[in-house]
Amino acid sequence: MTWVTGADGSPYGVTNLPYGVFRRNGGPSRIGVRIGSWVFDLAAAEAAELVLAAGTLCRPVLNDFMALGRPQWTAVRQRLTELLTDPAHRAAVEPLLVPLADVELLLPIEVADYVDFYSSEHHAANVGQIFRPGQPPLLPNWKHLPIGYHGRAGTVVVSGTPVTRPTGQRASAEGPVTGPSVRLDIEAEVGFVVGVPSALGDRVSVDDFAEHVFGVVLVNDWSARDIQAWEYQPLGPFLGKSFATSVSAWVTPLDALSDAFVPAPDQDPPVVDYLRDVPHLGLDLRLAVEWNGDQVSEPPFATMYWTPAQQLAHLTVNGASLRTGDLYASGTVSGPDRGQVGSFLELSWGGAEPVKVGDESRTFLNDGDTVTITATAPGPDGTTIALGEVSGTVRPAR
Amino acid sequence: MTWVTGADGSPYGVTNLPYGVFRRNGGPSRIGVRIGSWVFDLAAAEAAELVLAAGTLCRPVLNDFMALGRPQWTAVRQRLTELLTDPAHRAAVEPLLVPLADVELLLPIEVADYVDFYSSEHHAANVGQIFRPGQPPLLPNWKHLPIGYHGRAGTVVVSGTPVTRPTGQRASAEGPVTGPSVRLDIEAEVGFVVGVPSALGDRVSVDDFAEHVFGVVLVNDWSARDIQAWEYQPLGPFLGKSFATSVSAWVTPLDALSDAFVPAPDQDPPVVDYLRDVPHLGLDLRLAVEWNGDQVSEPPFATMYWTPAQQLAHLTVNGASLRTGDLYASGTVSGPDRGQVGSFLELSWGGAEPVKVGDESRTFLNDGDTVTITATAPGPDGTTIALGEVSGTVRPAR
Repeated sequence: MTWVTGADGSPYGVTNLPYGVFRRNGGPSRIGVRIGSWVFDLAAAEAAELVLAAGTLCRPVLNDFMALGRPQWTAVRQRLTELLTDPAHRAAVEPLLVPLADVELLLPIEVADYVDFYSSEHHAANVGQIFRPGQPPLLPNWKHLPIGYHGRAGTVVVSGTPVTRPTGQRASAEGPVTGPSVRLDIEAEVGFVVGVPSALGDRVSVDDFAEHVFGVVLVNDWSARDIQAWEYQPLGPFLGKSFATSVSAWVTPLDALSDAFVPAPDQDPPVVDYLRDVPHLGLDLRLAVEWNGDQVSEPPFATMYWTPAQQLAHLTVNGASLRTGDLYASGTVSGPDRGQVGSFLELSWGGAEPVKVGDESRTFLNDGDTVTITATAPGPDGTTIALGEVSGTVRPAR
Repeated sequence: MTWVTGADGSPYGVTNLPYGVFRRNGGPSRIGVRIGSWVFDLAAAEAAELVLAAGTLCRPVLNDFMALGRPQWTAVRQRLTELLTDPAHRAAVEPLLVPLADVELLLPIEVADYVDFYSSEHHAANVGQIFRPGQPPLLPNWKHLPIGYHGRAGTVVVSGTPVTRPTGQRASAEGPVTGPSVRLDIEAEVGFVVGVPSALGDRVSVDDFAEHVFGVVLVNDWSARDIQAWEYQPLGPFLGKSFATSVSAWVTPLDALSDAFVPAPDQDPPVVDYLRDVPHLGLDLRLAVEWNGDQVSEPPFATMYWTPAQQLAHLTVNGASLRTGDLYASGTVSGPDRGQVGSFLELSWGGAEPVKVGDESRTFLNDGDTVTITATAPGPDGTTIALGEVSGTVRPAR
């Protein structure tokens, strides 16, 4: 129970408390935590010594706070809970609550490296069937390691940022042509944000996931399928992805997701030692994809084959170091049914089966289209928490 | 002619003047410029108002200086030349020269995004013949666009940093096994460092290369071929590369390379509009690869099919923004002859033809091996300039 007006019963109640960065009237960037339809100004709270985090809450992004580590993350969360539930603090805290409607939300982290995995079996199999019909849907390595690649950290943008349709080369019967992408797509994903770094040469064990990972964002990994198809052999996706990757403004701390961990799908064949996570847990995040306001899909994150702990262990098994602000995304989240897929490539089955969006028919994205991805999860104490949203509108190519 | 003792006639004479970051006795990081076997302490020089660059020479990395742009880069270089050639300045400048032997060289830039291209036709064809014998050596897209992918910026390390042999999965007849890489390789490359950023959604034209690119580093893109071979389908190299990428400590400014631009190889078929660079110029950089002190190869950068201006235009044709500190590397530099290849995969033809290194026979790297890549180029006024070195010694897997 919180004393904050309207917050109890909301999916942004006191069991959620996601972190973000906001500003008012073009002022400086400030760290805040969301409660109901308010943002609690943590820069002001730390300045007033209502909460202490070594000054890191007065910075313009979450990175320094995230670098403090789990004991401090937990202590700050406990203190925030106390401030927002004990009516004794109301007089001090209430003036620091800013209406959400009055703020602009900014990119909450400075992204160090961005890695994108490919960890949904249903998605990988769908893509295999669409592009390699008649062949085994999964490549031989897929069940032995979480396939991933590096994306462009500098073009990670916050929800709400317009996405300009990319230009590039695509194959045609007459040879390559250059022009605006004609197969612009989304990928609904979940991203994990690293707080605590690791040293070059060290490996992070599956057991140390929660020591390094601060929290979760929603991700839309915009994808130009025609550019990607022409460029990706042999070194993988490049310009088909690097024009924009959108993330939610709110970073949900792992502490808010303690009731969302559920057994992940069995893995057969058995995985090699460094990927063996006991318990083998995924997250029961229920995504929803809206296309121009119509809900077109409900991707279930709990169906992901590879867990975030396995992804982190894989990412570092070669001794690659982690930095604060590293972001790794799950890959497109697709469940077994057509109504559960996380890309329009799958929803329209490679463009062959248009879908109804409002009164129109669609395969890939038109200029002016808006896609919004949201998610909910079981929260502490029987609550349901929301993970913000990642939204973007397509602008015409320049 | 410089008044600096021993610098005239050296490949680090006054026509070179590469930038770096150094420290003495574990002290703070300082920007310096190399002249002969000295480092001119530019932090001290700017503090003494001998040279002015908006305070950016007092920072711990080159990024803020690189963000100033070409007019300021040129003005600072002209001023440094004046200080180091006019004997009237000797009394003021000489106390700021530090013997190179007394300093530790550090990573000169904070790397934003790291992109690696694949732009040597000889290298791509060699790799094709080794891995796909009997098939066309180049994939259909190769001559239409400069193939590239994103690497891990957080594991870019400065020359001299030991490289720990990575552990990972590789394929075997009995299925995947995990262990230290048994095919650890190098890739001799040239890297281009972006100074001036671009806005999201904008494209950088081939004509604007010199407005954005500050200078050049040598790169060793260490590669675990066995890890790479198992993981790279379908999303490209990941852990086979991400454990370490070494760069030279010295960033050679483009202004020092004005006499090194030479016509690049003809491109057939003709390239699409946004890749058409007139004049089509590469750089006459002559690399040398030493393996435990034995020179084993002399890769000629002038043979690269795609030019750095084309790479930059391609990188941004989809609207991807540039940040100060972005680093893009050429891909392995290989000439037409076996003695000109930039990887040991090629030198040993896939491991089938061991090479003599000292008194020993080698295919890939053993623990304790040291690889050093150097380069020279025609400098201004008939001089020859050196581009520093990128060196690393292999440590056993942990």
